[in-house]
Amino acid sequence: METLIELGKKAKQAERYLAQASTTAKNEALLLMAEGLLDDKTAILEANHKDLEQAEVNNTSESLMDRLTLTTERVEAMAQGLKDIAKLPDPIGLVESMWTNEAGLKIGKQSVPLGVIGIIYEARPNVTSDAAGLCFKSGNAVILRGGKDAFHSNLAVVSSLQKALSACDLPETAIQLVEDTSRHSANEMMTLNRYLDVLVPRGGAGLIKAVVENATVPVIETGTGNCHVYIDQSAQLEMAKDIIVNAKTDRPSVCNAAETLLIHKDVAEEFLPEIEDALNKWDVVLHADDKAQKHLNDSLPASEKDWEKEYLDYELAVKVVDSLDEAITHINKYSTGHSEAIVTNDYFSGQRFHKEVNSAAVYVNASTRFTDGFAFGFGAEIGISTQKLHARGPMGLPELTSSKYIVFGEGQIR
Amino acid sequence: METLIELGKKAKQAERYLAQASTTAKNEALLLMAEGLLDDKTAILEANHKDLEQAEVNNTSESLMDRLTLTTERVEAMAQGLKDIAKLPDPIGLVESMWTNEAGLKIGKQSVPLGVIGIIYEARPNVTSDAAGLCFKSGNAVILRGGKDAFHSNLAVVSSLQKALSACDLPETAIQLVEDTSRHSANEMMTLNRYLDVLVPRGGAGLIKAVVENATVPVIETGTGNCHVYIDQSAQLEMAKDIIVNAKTDRPSVCNAAETLLIHKDVAEEFLPEIEDALNKWDVVLHADDKAQKHLNDSLPASEKDWEKEYLDYELAVKVVDSLDEAITHINKYSTGHSEAIVTNDYFSGQRFHKEVNSAAVYVNASTRFTDGFAFGFGAEIGISTQKLHARGPMGLPELTSSKYIVFGEGQIR
Repeated sequence: METLIELGKKAKQAERYLAQASTTAKNEALLLMAEGLLDDKTAILEANHKDLEQAEVNNTSESLMDRLTLTTERVEAMAQGLKDIAKLPDPIGLVESMWTNEAGLKIGKQSVPLGVIGIIYEARPNVTSDAAGLCFKSGNAVILRGGKDAFHSNLAVVSSLQKALSACDLPETAIQLVEDTSRHSANEMMTLNRYLDVLVPRGGAGLIKAVVENATVPVIETGTGNCHVYIDQSAQLEMAKDIIVNAKTDRPSVCNAAETLLIHKDVAEEFLPEIEDALNKWDVVLHADDKAQKHLNDSLPASEKDWEKEYLDYELAVKVVDSLDEAITHINKYSTGHSEAIVTNDYFSGQRFHKEVNSAAVYVNASTRFTDGFAFGFGAEIGISTQKLHARGPMGLPELTSSKYIVFGEGQIR
Repeated sequence: METLIELGKKAKQAERYLAQASTTAKNEALLLMAEGLLDDKTAILEANHKDLEQAEVNNTSESLMDRLTLTTERVEAMAQGLKDIAKLPDPIGLVESMWTNEAGLKIGKQSVPLGVIGIIYEARPNVTSDAAGLCFKSGNAVILRGGKDAFHSNLAVVSSLQKALSACDLPETAIQLVEDTSRHSANEMMTLNRYLDVLVPRGGAGLIKAVVENATVPVIETGTGNCHVYIDQSAQLEMAKDIIVNAKTDRPSVCNAAETLLIHKDVAEEFLPEIEDALNKWDVVLHADDKAQKHLNDSLPASEKDWEKEYLDYELAVKVVDSLDEAITHINKYSTGHSEAIVTNDYFSGQRFHKEVNSAAVYVNASTRFTDGFAFGFGAEIGISTQKLHARGPMGLPELTSSKYIVFGEGQIR
């Protein structure tokens, strides 16, 4: 088993080759990786079977079992994902601006890879090929540290991808898996400043928190979403109902699902019973404050904890507010800075919401569910950043790049 | 003395006001701050006198004394700096791109402030007003933690700036000084994740290293520059001489000064004696490898340590290389990723240098001394980033911003 420092050194060696690889070479390799996954399907499914057997012994929860399970379709989807990445424009080598300075130097700002990206993630083996493909296309070496539960599956996927790299005369060490899945290896990655340019945690709130609190490697914080929908007094009832139902129930386990409904006092009496009816079809449990409970048939009392919680389930906190001001203050206090929506017919309420809500994506009259790289039209997504440095919101290929200044002189001195 | 948590809370309160402040309001405040510094000149110089007296008691070095000293001219320059910042375009509120997604949502990416910026710096009191002005113009609250040596000067400057903020009905807590100048307060800032969006260390290599190794707050690493000039075998002697002399001697104490000269073996015999002559005018001490020493009259033998060192003085490491390849490999191994230059007449050598050298600014036929926000034409500079995340190279006002997606819908759900 290689140490993280050994993996780091090898990744740094691969970095130079990757930065110089042509778009054509990278796309051909991605297509070969996709073919390879299909060719190695049996081996991958066998490895996954080992993980699933172990998971059963461990009495793993049903939802985790589902995330862990690979099927023929899922392997095919992983392969298709790599083919889709091959079709996206190469984010490397763009000179987004170039100018001449006072001394006559031509200065261009050119996109370059970040270098070596570390990814710490949990149970889903499809993240392995997705993340590897996106890092590879953007010219980055990647060190993947997946969860213990998916170890055999991840190893089979990475072996397959490395075989394809080898066949293209590209360094296998462009994509590496950390074989030590103990907590120790995760901690070691967090301080591997010498070899990692950035660390991206993908997973639950606990993992993200541990990485943010302990890493000295630059981190991109992703994916915790305590998202809000605020229904203004001027809102149309049907639109409000559609948006909150969609934001809560379309896919409750994802980060862009709504967790709290705020509603203006002037429409609470009329709207809340109808909203409750609509949410009842999905058996959504409501945690409501006193004022909201008055207009609801069946709800639990909400506490401070409910305003902070990302349920990721068919549960919703509900609060009646006196004003747009109170709504914005509540959101900026409790939100994780992911996605928030206002439903309103009032021009100035929409303007203020856009301006004053301090989150990565701020919607007027649409569901928070749109916050992802695919829905935004980026064609890919490595995660959704909830921090302000480097990238904020859905991250596609351009967010996996840095820049350098290339300067053309004719002997200028200062 | 307020705790850092108290300062953090107050900065967060100021953040919301600052993000909404109009360009006009910010510029008027900057001009008032400039006037204020001039009005308070006597008080500021008196405070500085206290610091200087204490510094003398402490047997402070001459160069540190120089950095610490304020004069009437220096205070006027600080005021002029704030006026210049007022003239720069407001980096906040730009919608750099806007598009319509498949569902018909209009999605705009708008620049917003980072939030609260922490700055840890050392002895120069003029950094206090510079950094405060840049953070303020970009709508950020700032918490300044200057060095112990400059404490009274910093306090006088910040008090003056706060008075101007107050006079404009803006929160004084937009600009705050940490009064505890112990090591403890610096360490506390490094993990103040709840209140700081980013931490920028400005100072010597020791400070930068301590912050990078210990901070869990997102950091922008700035300013260590082990910069190289490589003279290719096709270089013109006069141009090579001008560039290395300028890069080494124009201002040796700054981060974009050259620290190592690499020279191709085919021109070492002809060029090195002439370069030595030219550098002799500034008494530059040469640390040369065996091959270079043969062509030099007076040099010390170079060791591994010399390749790594940022002399920041009239000293230069010199090494003869066999090829462009060897030069690039040496640079990518020892450089801090700041600025590197090649002197060459060969088109393909220039191309390869631009592509393969992994630094923030890569020059063909110009001095490394141009790497700063003013020379690049940005009109300002908060520092020079040597990391790849968020910003790389000279950082002006746009590098002090983040973005948010503002989305305009008409009831879209997913």
